[in-house]
Amino acid sequence: MGCNLAIAGVTGAVGQEFLKILKERDFPFDSLKMLASNRSAGKKIEFKGKKYIVEELTKKSFSRIDIALFSAGGARSKEFVPAAVEAGTVVVDNSSAFRMDADVPLVIPEINPQKIQEHKGIIANPNCSTIIGIVPVWPLHKANPVKRMVVSTYQAASGAGMRAMFELESQTREILDGREPTCEAFPYQIAFNCFSHNSALDANGYNLEEVKMVNETRKIFDCPEIAITCTCIRIPVLRAHCESINLEFADPITPEQVRDLLSTAPGVSVLDDRENNRFPMPIDATGKDDILVGRIRQDASIAENRGINIWVAGDQLRKGAALNAVQIAEKLL
Amino acid sequence: MGCNLAIAGVTGAVGQEFLKILKERDFPFDSLKMLASNRSAGKKIEFKGKKYIVEELTKKSFSRIDIALFSAGGARSKEFVPAAVEAGTVVVDNSSAFRMDADVPLVIPEINPQKIQEHKGIIANPNCSTIIGIVPVWPLHKANPVKRMVVSTYQAASGAGMRAMFELESQTREILDGREPTCEAFPYQIAFNCFSHNSALDANGYNLEEVKMVNETRKIFDCPEIAITCTCIRIPVLRAHCESINLEFADPITPEQVRDLLSTAPGVSVLDDRENNRFPMPIDATGKDDILVGRIRQDASIAENRGINIWVAGDQLRKGAALNAVQIAEKLL
Repeated sequence: MGCNLAIAGVTGAVGQEFLKILKERDFPFDSLKMLASNRSAGKKIEFKGKKYIVEELTKKSFSRIDIALFSAGGARSKEFVPAAVEAGTVVVDNSSAFRMDADVPLVIPEINPQKIQEHKGIIANPNCSTIIGIVPVWPLHKANPVKRMVVSTYQAASGAGMRAMFELESQTREILDGREPTCEAFPYQIAFNCFSHNSALDANGYNLEEVKMVNETRKIFDCPEIAITCTCIRIPVLRAHCESINLEFADPITPEQVRDLLSTAPGVSVLDDRENNRFPMPIDATGKDDILVGRIRQDASIAENRGINIWVAGDQLRKGAALNAVQIAEKLL
Repeated sequence: MGCNLAIAGVTGAVGQEFLKILKERDFPFDSLKMLASNRSAGKKIEFKGKKYIVEELTKKSFSRIDIALFSAGGARSKEFVPAAVEAGTVVVDNSSAFRMDADVPLVIPEINPQKIQEHKGIIANPNCSTIIGIVPVWPLHKANPVKRMVVSTYQAASGAGMRAMFELESQTREILDGREPTCEAFPYQIAFNCFSHNSALDANGYNLEEVKMVNETRKIFDCPEIAITCTCIRIPVLRAHCESINLEFADPITPEQVRDLLSTAPGVSVLDDRENNRFPMPIDATGKDDILVGRIRQDASIAENRGINIWVAGDQLRKGAALNAVQIAEKLL
């Protein structure tokens, strides 16, 4: 019942989270191949009581591999995923390389699991901010179509990888010690600061992270007409993203209906304690599988009670990346 | 040409900023009285080469005082401002105590300076998030009425006072040292975390900070029909707030028009360098008088090119509090 599994990018932040989640969920495999760039090749990683040696990711890495989980960056995915597919491997790719390809399913198992079976060798894992934002929006959209979303993100350092997480810590120490912060992983100081997401801007002034949110949501919801605008911001938090989401629905909706719909939705936990002013925080979401949702309120600035505000928090490395990919792999088996 | 000036709450974060700004702007005064709670009475503060002894704020503090700048919290303003007014003092009050009173002008000098002369002894300084958000929105609203605003804030610790700023630093040290963070000024961990603004929630689930933004903007713009929704979040930053603002206008508008209007607007600096992905950050706004504006983009999710996104940063202690009050006092003279 197992499979021959490979992980490409195993030494990265998401790669390490793959291992943690495979173990937690007791993912069935007959063999496991750990792959990374030649810089990391030769490293030893212990996993479930067995020692593995990290091998260099090459086009020949995939003979007899059934499933490969890729999180090695877009450039490496573009280079090596086609070779894996040619070798008969089904790839779950965490990069943005193939997400918008028409013949590549882009899957969040809570939303569109039926797309998995349409794959032609590649299934794409959506971007972290997209997953964290739309897992709780989907059950609402199914009940009452969302016409428009206005999203502002509060994104953790982890989205930029392990180096960025270390940099947040090291910069923080430098500043507390009265020194100049060293910026290497990020272009600007992240400690005690925040900045617009450092991905390339398109001609309209939107950065790639924002463009992904718009395009990926439309594809995953299979709803090209949904109107979305987005502002993506990095804040000095380690590994959970938050998002402030304003929703305009086709029909009237109440906060109670939203709470009811979310309370039974898969992958979602409602944390909306007005009495104690207790709502989702990054430290609540860290290490959790579910997306936490709170601040569920009517938005009176939209007519006819068709507006709702929510505030969400989700672990960027888990549901935002590794967990979602492992859930896809589980459905593949 | 001077006046007899008093500062109530002089030892607080805003009180200290009052002194800095009065000195920078060479505010003309004949005498200066430094007032604070009895806990701080007796402290010595040097200002412009002269030593002052902090006196206890009482109802008798205001004899012969022409102007008093209050930043001692809402409860103290409610207790002592009426006595000051009775003594003939004109009070510029930074608390929320009188802001929504019909006969109290609520003033941002860049927006509604004409209201100052209508005062009956009290002029209210708006809330920091309101000032920082709407100084750049006003010149746009004058040119093309804003129908609706969706705001998400990224608020610094300074808004909760000096203790909160120290707590951000001390918690950060505790966490870096592997200890449990101590929460006293804030209800929750602020270091490497963020949380929904810790002010009381109303029956609709909006916290006071959000309610202020809505009500104060309507009063300052003299536009009760403007639709506003708001989500206020604290992030681990010391003293500058950022806000992600989505604007729906009555008529079509382009990013170029917005940039043109803002480039000549008082109190605003445009920092919108798409080429270098360089936009306003809290560390840019810290210590600056102007509100910085960037990420000026068309919002395609609003029909007919009537949508614009902007991202702003402003120093919470300066324009968000002390500077705005001093500007009002300057206009009083």
